[in-house]
Amino acid sequence: MTSDPRNSPQQERSRETRSRILESTVTCLATKGWQSTTTSAVAAHCGISRGALQHHFPTREGLFLTALEQMFDEQAAANATSAALADGTDRFDLIVEQVLGYYASDLFKAALQIWTAAAAEPALRENILPLEEKFARRMYDNAVLVLGADTSDERTRRLIQTTLDLARGLGLADVLSDDSARRRKIAHFWAEELRSIKTAHPTTEQG
Amino acid sequence: MTSDPRNSPQQERSRETRSRILESTVTCLATKGWQSTTTSAVAAHCGISRGALQHHFPTREGLFLTALEQMFDEQAAANATSAALADGTDRFDLIVEQVLGYYASDLFKAALQIWTAAAAEPALRENILPLEEKFARRMYDNAVLVLGADTSDERTRRLIQTTLDLARGLGLADVLSDDSARRRKIAHFWAEELRSIKTAHPTTEQG
Repeated sequence: MTSDPRNSPQQERSRETRSRILESTVTCLATKGWQSTTTSAVAAHCGISRGALQHHFPTREGLFLTALEQMFDEQAAANATSAALADGTDRFDLIVEQVLGYYASDLFKAALQIWTAAAAEPALRENILPLEEKFARRMYDNAVLVLGADTSDERTRRLIQTTLDLARGLGLADVLSDDSARRRKIAHFWAEELRSIKTAHPTTEQG
Repeated sequence: MTSDPRNSPQQERSRETRSRILESTVTCLATKGWQSTTTSAVAAHCGISRGALQHHFPTREGLFLTALEQMFDEQAAANATSAALADGTDRFDLIVEQVLGYYASDLFKAALQIWTAAAAEPALRENILPLEEKFARRMYDNAVLVLGADTSDERTRRLIQTTLDLARGLGLADVLSDDSARRRKIAHFWAEELRSIKTAHPTTEQG
């Protein structure tokens, strides 16, 4: 939100509006669902006119795809930052918290609405798959890096992949009811299971 | 499909129609998605008139809920039967195959469409939650029974719960693209992990 001297106040304002539209899109999808998240509903949530929204995003599908991509990028960057800053935190707890946290977020709930609609719309699916694969790959690579995992070991690779699949399943369970108490227990359990991976180099945090 | 002497041919036909409608509902939801699965679309898929469908199911929501409930019952019964008949099959492979198989089925894909719509419709959510909880409980109890699991052991309970959550996550991954090759690898890996549960009584199939 700090201004960049290279940009005019108008460019700055335009970028802020764009960013607020993308956030509103995710919130609307997560809370109102696919059908009710029209461009008008997003504009209303954002406090701008439908015309102003369409100036930034001419189509609903383009808006949704950009929102997902931008939020995925922000989430991946936030994961990397929190991993870099979390010197005192147990690595296994940190990764389980990051992965389960993402799948319990509005971003996942928004992505779920788009995926589910895309299941019956091949054209939309083609556009979403690469975004989803790129994001899953970044989550996996981040976990490997933070855990210092030895990926030449097959069981280690599977345990890390399973962390992502398990978290996706827990995220889906959380869509219908608040599943957070159960999720905390599973997170604790899973962080302990993950400790049995092979590491490529000694991790300083482990005893 | 065999006729019951207590019923007239007309009653028999009516029950068959009802059953075909429920199957068509699941197929339509899984392949066409929530929005396109109107009562007219289900009637057309089933080869009957919309009026004939509404004679059996006056409302779309009632149709969806009955379809889910009936299919959940059939799936749970099929799991119990295949477990009872599978004398020579490894118990761990069997349970992983059953649970992952369900979450890769049209029934799960149909349920996903309803859940995702229900995320934004509290009234629908209230009606679906008890169905979903009952089915999840039956899947868990079936796994405990087949594995002869000692549920007084916390890690054993968590490993079995995790099997269901993991399978749900794999099912969701399969909605956008054919994830079956990866799923087979995870299934094999997970059946091995599950072997570390505590059993309440010696299992005859294990070495």
